[in-house]
Amino acid sequence: MTIPAERDDNSAMSALEPRVVTVIGAGTIGVSWAALFLARGMRVRVHSRRPDARGAVTGALRLFAPALPGGPAEPDALAQRLEIEPDLERAVAGADVIQENVEEVIGVKRELFARIERLASREALLLSSTSTMLPDDLGADMEDSGRLVVAHPFNPPHIIPLVEIIGGQRTRQQAVEDAVKFCMSAGKSPVVLRKPIAGFAANRLQAALLRESIHLVREGIVTMAELDEVVTQSIGLRWATTGPFLAFHLGGGAGGLAHWLEHLGSGLEEGWKQLGQPAMDDATKRLLIEQADSAYGSRSYERLVTERDERQLSVLSALAAG
Amino acid sequence: MTIPAERDDNSAMSALEPRVVTVIGAGTIGVSWAALFLARGMRVRVHSRRPDARGAVTGALRLFAPALPGGPAEPDALAQRLEIEPDLERAVAGADVIQENVEEVIGVKRELFARIERLASREALLLSSTSTMLPDDLGADMEDSGRLVVAHPFNPPHIIPLVEIIGGQRTRQQAVEDAVKFCMSAGKSPVVLRKPIAGFAANRLQAALLRESIHLVREGIVTMAELDEVVTQSIGLRWATTGPFLAFHLGGGAGGLAHWLEHLGSGLEEGWKQLGQPAMDDATKRLLIEQADSAYGSRSYERLVTERDERQLSVLSALAAG
Repeated sequence: MTIPAERDDNSAMSALEPRVVTVIGAGTIGVSWAALFLARGMRVRVHSRRPDARGAVTGALRLFAPALPGGPAEPDALAQRLEIEPDLERAVAGADVIQENVEEVIGVKRELFARIERLASREALLLSSTSTMLPDDLGADMEDSGRLVVAHPFNPPHIIPLVEIIGGQRTRQQAVEDAVKFCMSAGKSPVVLRKPIAGFAANRLQAALLRESIHLVREGIVTMAELDEVVTQSIGLRWATTGPFLAFHLGGGAGGLAHWLEHLGSGLEEGWKQLGQPAMDDATKRLLIEQADSAYGSRSYERLVTERDERQLSVLSALAAG
Repeated sequence: MTIPAERDDNSAMSALEPRVVTVIGAGTIGVSWAALFLARGMRVRVHSRRPDARGAVTGALRLFAPALPGGPAEPDALAQRLEIEPDLERAVAGADVIQENVEEVIGVKRELFARIERLASREALLLSSTSTMLPDDLGADMEDSGRLVVAHPFNPPHIIPLVEIIGGQRTRQQAVEDAVKFCMSAGKSPVVLRKPIAGFAANRLQAALLRESIHLVREGIVTMAELDEVVTQSIGLRWATTGPFLAFHLGGGAGGLAHWLEHLGSGLEEGWKQLGQPAMDDATKRLLIEQADSAYGSRSYERLVTERDERQLSVLSALAAG
């Protein structure tokens, strides 16, 4: 469900201007959110008890500054709107939005949201970056979890547009709408799932493709590097510009999807039966680790990430200009 | 298997300069190949018995001219190196490469390759664009199918780089290497499959993602348009720049894939068990057709294809410049 609101149209959230956003956790996702929110002009408090939290966030600001939305940013200017606050009570006091990014352990998150409920403003919107848990579970220890929404980004949040928005049985519709507006004001592309489902949507699709990728490597059809080449040179390019259903619709020619299904629909189901069901046994893990090392082991993590993000930004710029 | 040859390095194929390429069939794939080969400076003969074959090819040249590799082309200039030849014997006489693109009916293709064997030069490289058949089957009625190779493009061939190259038990290694060099000289990114497999690689991956996409729509998690938005705003963008295995490797942080598998490998297998297995029954087909109509039915096929190709080219240009 995409809610047709103008970007930056936050009339329904006027209480959020000027916004204070509290980011809970200074791991990979937390620091990327913090950099994005700062680049979008928000005041950001990062709550973390890591002794190196300030270094982690300012390091991320320097690393991400060239790639932030709106063009290259000056890390020191961004940091003027940044606070690091190891005390949870002070971190959430007066915050309009609280984005949680702690470890994926249900007990830790439940206890955290119960504490936040007692410490934060009654109006604060509570968001979780969890990729695996649902709002009703996250809010099980709260008195009222009606303002708790999952806002699951795709890594890294400061670059990839999608945020999956998931409400629970106890989530108020207004909170879901506020989460959508907040994500849009941060320049993201929120998509609301109409029902909760394990793994949400994007990670389930990713798992489906990865399963067949692992099958093809295990069967010796292609190496890992060749499989990556197959994807980046065909379906990846296609899906960056055209979703799988629109591609399918256009594959039917002027007759569209109906024509395609009539002529090839049964072949699709036959093809599904032949897809692989690899086991992730020790031999498979060893094979994958060996091939990853052979394909990518000679380049450092930082270099590969920088190259990935540069390519990603150039693609996003090209699509935005088109 | 990618063979590390320079693009345009055709020293081993000097007999192919200046190249005459015969394209058999003037359907969607045939006319796209013809436009590409013309844009790359080759002489092209299109064999088709369609009375409107010349119109189909010149119409395609006009439609594709703005999007051809090497920048916008002048359709009339390209057409100077084009012949339309309804007689098979004259069409293949003296051709260096013959690219077959007729209907996906094994009997039709077998008979065609047996006739081509008798009519073409002994040195001609024989390529098939089939997406479903293997070289040994295609060449079953030939005396010697050692020079027959599957060179399966991703639609449209004049834009999408990947060509999957598949040899059979009877295919000579030299023919596979020549097919790779020919595809590179046409500006494509060939990947040789190390073993034949039904559906080859890219279409199997596509089928795996489409199956889960259909599952999510059938379950009412998202609509078709929302599913397309999820993909184009996350995994599609990612896979245009970074293959699934490299993404997976980087998802493990500095510890790479080994770290990821150690901590999350079992979750991956659990996730696979929860993926959907939709039936393509009549209710599902009706749902998909209704949603395609609602999402995309208001725009014409030509407009949607033009928009798709424009976005695709801008992404390819951005990646080439990066």
